[in-house]
Amino acid sequence: MHIGLIGLGKMGFNMRERLRRGGITVTGFDRNPELTDVSSLDELVAAVPAPRIIWVMVPAGAVTDNVIRELSGALQEGDLVIDGGNSRFTDDQAHGALLAEHGISFLDCGVSGGVWGLANGYGLMVGGSDAEVARAMPIFDALRPEGERQESFVHVGDIGAGHYAKMVHNGIEYGLMQAYAEGYELLQAKDIIKDVPGTFTAWQKGTVVRSWLLDLMVNALQDDPDLARVAGYVEDSGEGRWTVEESIANAVPTPAITASVFARFASRQDDSPAMKMVAALRNQFGGHAVRPARQDPA
Amino acid sequence: MHIGLIGLGKMGFNMRERLRRGGITVTGFDRNPELTDVSSLDELVAAVPAPRIIWVMVPAGAVTDNVIRELSGALQEGDLVIDGGNSRFTDDQAHGALLAEHGISFLDCGVSGGVWGLANGYGLMVGGSDAEVARAMPIFDALRPEGERQESFVHVGDIGAGHYAKMVHNGIEYGLMQAYAEGYELLQAKDIIKDVPGTFTAWQKGTVVRSWLLDLMVNALQDDPDLARVAGYVEDSGEGRWTVEESIANAVPTPAITASVFARFASRQDDSPAMKMVAALRNQFGGHAVRPARQDPA
Amino acid sequence: MHIGLIGLGKMGFNMRERLRRGGITVTGFDRNPELTDVSSLDELVAAVPAPRIIWVMVPAGAVTDNVIRELSGALQEGDLVIDGGNSRFTDDQAHGALLAEHGISFLDCGVSGGVWGLANGYGLMVGGSDAEVARAMPIFDALRPEGERQESFVHVGDIGAGHYAKMVHNGIEYGLMQAYAEGYELLQAKDIIKDVPGTFTAWQKGTVVRSWLLDLMVNALQDDPDLARVAGYVEDSGEGRWTVEESIANAVPTPAITASVFARFASRQDDSPAMKMVAALRNQFGGHAVRPARQDPA
Amino acid sequence: MHIGLIGLGKMGFNMRERLRRGGITVTGFDRNPELTDVSSLDELVAAVPAPRIIWVMVPAGAVTDNVIRELSGALQEGDLVIDGGNSRFTDDQAHGALLAEHGISFLDCGVSGGVWGLANGYGLMVGGSDAEVARAMPIFDALRPEGERQESFVHVGDIGAGHYAKMVHNGIEYGLMQAYAEGYELLQAKDIIKDVPGTFTAWQKGTVVRSWLLDLMVNALQDDPDLARVAGYVEDSGEGRWTVEESIANAVPTPAITASVFARFASRQDDSPAMKMVAALRNQFGGHAVRPARQDPA
Repeated sequence: MHIGLIGLGKMGFNMRERLRRGGITVTGFDRNPELTDVSSLDELVAAVPAPRIIWVMVPAGAVTDNVIRELSGALQEGDLVIDGGNSRFTDDQAHGALLAEHGISFLDCGVSGGVWGLANGYGLMVGGSDAEVARAMPIFDALRPEGERQESFVHVGDIGAGHYAKMVHNGIEYGLMQAYAEGYELLQAKDIIKDVPGTFTAWQKGTVVRSWLLDLMVNALQDDPDLARVAGYVEDSGEGRWTVEESIANAVPTPAITASVFARFASRQDDSPAMKMVAALRNQFGGHAVRPARQDPA
Repeated sequence: MHIGLIGLGKMGFNMRERLRRGGITVTGFDRNPELTDVSSLDELVAAVPAPRIIWVMVPAGAVTDNVIRELSGALQEGDLVIDGGNSRFTDDQAHGALLAEHGISFLDCGVSGGVWGLANGYGLMVGGSDAEVARAMPIFDALRPEGERQESFVHVGDIGAGHYAKMVHNGIEYGLMQAYAEGYELLQAKDIIKDVPGTFTAWQKGTVVRSWLLDLMVNALQDDPDLARVAGYVEDSGEGRWTVEESIANAVPTPAITASVFARFASRQDDSPAMKMVAALRNQFGGHAVRPARQDPA
Repeated sequence: MHIGLIGLGKMGFNMRERLRRGGITVTGFDRNPELTDVSSLDELVAAVPAPRIIWVMVPAGAVTDNVIRELSGALQEGDLVIDGGNSRFTDDQAHGALLAEHGISFLDCGVSGGVWGLANGYGLMVGGSDAEVARAMPIFDALRPEGERQESFVHVGDIGAGHYAKMVHNGIEYGLMQAYAEGYELLQAKDIIKDVPGTFTAWQKGTVVRSWLLDLMVNALQDDPDLARVAGYVEDSGEGRWTVEESIANAVPTPAITASVFARFASRQDDSPAMKMVAALRNQFGGHAVRPARQDPA
Repeated sequence: MHIGLIGLGKMGFNMRERLRRGGITVTGFDRNPELTDVSSLDELVAAVPAPRIIWVMVPAGAVTDNVIRELSGALQEGDLVIDGGNSRFTDDQAHGALLAEHGISFLDCGVSGGVWGLANGYGLMVGGSDAEVARAMPIFDALRPEGERQESFVHVGDIGAGHYAKMVHNGIEYGLMQAYAEGYELLQAKDIIKDVPGTFTAWQKGTVVRSWLLDLMVNALQDDPDLARVAGYVEDSGEGRWTVEESIANAVPTPAITASVFARFASRQDDSPAMKMVAALRNQFGGHAVRPARQDPA
């Protein structure tokens, strides 16, 4: 099988490599001339034999929109586009409809595994028709870990369902990380606890909280036992926010996941306007002293 | 009526004044020689005619414990002690038992109103026996606002019930302040909103959210429309924490009040250990860049 | 001044009455023949002298969309439409643009006050141009409570800003109600508290938590001291959800308000799928007994 | 090595078996005559050679208090008691002090692994002195999984530290379960998701959220794909509550873990008093209909 792959960033670059190791011929295209196999989208389309499969692995939103639009013009009836990025499920539905107007098929595929996926394989969640999923199965089999297919691959539903499941996966991931992190803070705040990294290490086998994320925490604490080198400043990507939005849209209470999203927002604030107001209010009714705002160093 | 009052801080000082305006003779005692009417507890006890009523208005915890212990020795059978501070309801039960051993009665009284109580009168929540509540009623009537007694005074239950109600009152207060503060932050974050102080001002009459706390927010924003002078650093006192502890003890979900307590904790952290861990974890699995910890200026 | 008013439901009916009491001539239109003054939109347009002011007071979303679209065809250049319903601010921007194509002006006005507004007056938050706000000021002055205009009326910003402020107002309202309700549950769960309604009543004067909502709680508890007649089942309207969505869109942590929205979602679930999973999981790892699902009575 | 083990319930019974398989001679005592090896505590003490090691595996709180008190009288100087139950860390400190008065040593050991520990081995977190930890190491080695000791055993600190770490472990466990459960509810609420059990199954290999708890969710969904047989009613044990209390005591924000505790509280309520109040309030200000309380079937 010979496919095209658009986007050779942190994820796409590794996936090209894993696909090749799995026996798939891959022509990759990226704007970065040091990474790309071809110099243009047209060249990519020319290089891949029809009926083509093109895997798209670029940032969600406008960039993916543009690539899908270009592909809708460049590809031919019978070709198949797979979006393996982190698109919102509603975007998938629009992309699938656009491509369908040109007789081009579409699958959305949520991909999990991060930088470890090259070695371990990726977990895959796919949305689209049975026929197209079957057609792309050699790709999925090359990307996922060895072993039982059902433990790393699922055909979740129609177009959009793959990214919906990936969105929920990431929402859960936010919640899991927050739970571990709160526990970490409780341990490191308590004077009677003498070995925080050792405690996390000892949870790896046998306990109820053992997990891959826990193993990564142990790695992080081995490198930097007090996390002295890292600031408590955390970005968030679309999936966490969309998970909260879907909670709202479907009237599903998600207090733990939402708390994890809010904690990230707060982590990026130098000072909280809300807490300035609480401080001001306490001063108003109780005469409680306020701490003056930090002077700007400028 | 002639009573003793121990503790002439921010609250006690004003209460002495309001009691006097209400026709109660008050002998006040404070360690601060500039505030006190007498130079010792013994002198206070000597000055107040038996059977005495002594109002205690000192910091909750160890200071109140000490004062109650001293009073248990200094007072006589038939005297009455009223703790108007912010004691935990479980402390009241211990204090009442200790005093009862000496034949001294006890009431606990939650007092709300802050620095405005002198002018407006205080809201009062009292725990203890009917007889002692009736005995102290002239004091309560002098402290509370004019008008219907039931709108500013309640006999909540037995000893401890007054401070329990005050604890819940303060827990609610935390939640109310947090809700307004979150709304403030939402308004000031939005570019299409041109007049944040004006919006709060316009909520004072007619809207569902009108309240005394809202009036105080308007005051605060008149002084400092962007809250530029105040840091988002907020202390918390015992009541907020006890409210969460009682939520746990009674299996009552209190997500909004608890969120307000946690927001105060977070407001006092220079950097969040939990969020350092989340940042470290994201780096581990996704290769996401971390922001280096701020250098210590030293 | 003679204006048109579309929508004579719970809010619109009372507002027509308050406007008339304030000296404004109002021609009202509603599909309900028992409430309406005219039998069609065309008749309404014919009845109101040009340049017209038409106040729209219908359910947000599709119904408002339809009314605005009809008005864009029926009105003339120079007319002014005011949407006083609970539209989303993004809808206002679309409605304003549509009407502008026909030379028709637009204001959005958030209205607070509920069923009490007829007697008390309404709090008003308006978005749009200075000129149109000035033109409609007699209407606003008739609707708002007597007294200082700035305490019940604000021109918040451009089109959409009025409803944005109303959205935040309602988000705050959700948070305030949740905080009081949590406190209520804590009080009624505690055996030492003998007088829950009396406690709320006594908070009305003098305490920090006094507010209009508190007064309404006292009313509710007078009618039904244990709330025995009402189920803990709470609907939510758009504004609470939009507030959370705006929190997400603007990266503003709003844990208390969001908790109040989630509590409403949970209140409407017969059984929580999430908690079914937690129960199932506990059974898996700890052998903890699960409670069998309630049998369907059917 | 020959030790005594008090408590042969769900956990202790399995631990006796695993210890025996690991070459430790165990005399077990339980009130249940079908489980016990000896008929009294005295018989147990007589059966175990001095200096003795007695492992206590009984319910935390009063039962453990009683056993420790009895042991303080029955054992001899130089003996060692290990509390492997779920005691609060503050209880450990009291128990250690009581036993020390009799020259008896004490270790507290948090044990994780549930019903799977017999086969997999248990994760162990220990508090106490270096010397006593070394003395008991053969027991710990028999209980924990094979492999690197540090991955399943940690000497966390002085007396109490083991159970503190276990408490935090359980708090994290609550948060992890809640995060997965919220994700489960989001998936099953969405019409485009056609295979919820398959999605969880596919997360087991390769994804960021893979964990032992996830494997158990897959088991649960294999047994009962819609969780139709289990009610969303979830008990909580001490550790989750203590974790929140320690959050409060140490001013550590733990919103996700606390949300998971509150979700359990709410899961056990037939109707929420707080939400009854919110419903009553909405009726008061907006005239919104309330749902009447369900009639008692009696």
